[in-house]
Amino acid sequence: MVENMAATGLHLVGTGAGSPLNMTVGGKEIASSCDYRFLEGYTSLLGENGENRLEKLVGAYEIIRRPEVENPERILELAKSNSVALLVVGDPMQATTHVDLLLRCKDEGIHTSVHHAVSAVDLVCAGLGLQSYRFGRQVSLTFPHGNHLPTSPLEFIAENRFLGLHTLVLLDLDPTGMGIEQPQPMTPPQAFEVMCRMVERLKDDPPPHLELENVSSARDLSRLKAVKWLLNEKIGDVHAVICSNLGSSNAQIKSGLLSKITENCVSGIHSIVITGELIGMEKDALEKLH
Amino acid sequence: MVENMAATGLHLVGTGAGSPLNMTVGGKEIASSCDYRFLEGYTSLLGENGENRLEKLVGAYEIIRRPEVENPERILELAKSNSVALLVVGDPMQATTHVDLLLRCKDEGIHTSVHHAVSAVDLVCAGLGLQSYRFGRQVSLTFPHGNHLPTSPLEFIAENRFLGLHTLVLLDLDPTGMGIEQPQPMTPPQAFEVMCRMVERLKDDPPPHLELENVSSARDLSRLKAVKWLLNEKIGDVHAVICSNLGSSNAQIKSGLLSKITENCVSGIHSIVITGELIGMEKDALEKLH
Repeated sequence: MVENMAATGLHLVGTGAGSPLNMTVGGKEIASSCDYRFLEGYTSLLGENGENRLEKLVGAYEIIRRPEVENPERILELAKSNSVALLVVGDPMQATTHVDLLLRCKDEGIHTSVHHAVSAVDLVCAGLGLQSYRFGRQVSLTFPHGNHLPTSPLEFIAENRFLGLHTLVLLDLDPTGMGIEQPQPMTPPQAFEVMCRMVERLKDDPPPHLELENVSSARDLSRLKAVKWLLNEKIGDVHAVICSNLGSSNAQIKSGLLSKITENCVSGIHSIVITGELIGMEKDALEKLH
Repeated sequence: MVENMAATGLHLVGTGAGSPLNMTVGGKEIASSCDYRFLEGYTSLLGENGENRLEKLVGAYEIIRRPEVENPERILELAKSNSVALLVVGDPMQATTHVDLLLRCKDEGIHTSVHHAVSAVDLVCAGLGLQSYRFGRQVSLTFPHGNHLPTSPLEFIAENRFLGLHTLVLLDLDPTGMGIEQPQPMTPPQAFEVMCRMVERLKDDPPPHLELENVSSARDLSRLKAVKWLLNEKIGDVHAVICSNLGSSNAQIKSGLLSKITENCVSGIHSIVITGELIGMEKDALEKLH
């Protein structure tokens, strides 16, 4: 038992992105001391040989899928009289589901603790040699379902670029949207295709808040300008960086025009940075360090 | 010796924010296997009992200050024929100095590796229950030196708020600006005072890019609007969260009006979040989880 650790409760433990070696010393101690361990097996992949590595670090665990986390009665019941670790790939607090879980525990008087880990956001924002304060808000690209294709990710990319800032684009891993299958990471060519479709939608059928007659606030006008400015470029000619399998030994980083670098990527988990202005050492770092 | 670890080279290892328990399992393994260990002792503080904890985790180390990192001849010379760990509080890639160090190693043919850790950015962005994709660019507040008071941090806060986004405000730890003394973290009242002085400066003596006759680009105009909009509020009435000693056992989180919550804070290391819109579960999380 870890010093000062409560005898019962739910402990959210991040296993880190890329490899379980990216979990923290503190998280490993807590998880290996718990009576029960569950791994949330739908938000991401553990990386090469990750299952064995994780078991070696913390002990045996049971894999659960989204329905059991969103309807967590079994886990909460266990946590009332045992110490329970919920292992989450990456950082455990990047998902709303886990905030909700903590709120439910609070309501039911169940002790909780959170153990962060090195996330994809850390690996990209700090790992590329780009300055973390030069990133604007991050966005996620989800798999399109039929005709449903919200354009907000591309609008936010436009706003960030308009401000000279980089955008971290996280790619979805769940084509079904249900969280019940083994994750299938979106590939860079798929991501590029989704962005091209968003460009077409923004040109042909813009959402109401981007039609000039509906623009009422200074905020909307500013977004409209940023989007128009992005649409003047060819999206394939935008400078970007593809980050593949960061944090694992088969990491790959490719920097260049979006249309070019999305070709011939390694398989695995990817994210994309759409760069803003590259200043100071950022250009050197991108060229030389990878 | 860690599996596959090169016999010589420089390894940047983050010790994590708040406590060395926030370093990764992989970082600990590398650092404890190295022939030499240095701790960069000026960028931040190790937290309660951190020195002993760190030594227990990785072995004995020598503390060095900024001049030895910025003029790293001794470290690089050692790394040519030994394995050397440079331990950095927080994440090792948040500072330009370390990007520069990696670039120098590349030029001199010295092997390098980087081991991220849980940083202040992770603890705040993920730890508060605010959604990480609702943060705009982060800013740092430095200690004012005489009349030198750049207003850009407050301009970026204004832009983020204008977009509805939260801003993580990191507070400086080095009143001298030289990196040679024991760090002295800026206190929340000092930070509030610096922001008030920036408001005055923006009203009375705005920088050239915020004077209407100099505004030429849509980008500048957008920033000007955001700043004017912020100046219409009283800065003390802005909603904010003070995060003190996150990642350690004497962590404290206070949420409310900036002028109120900066009173009577615990001692230690602080950062401040100036919130944008609070949506979904964010408000509940701020109210209930802390």
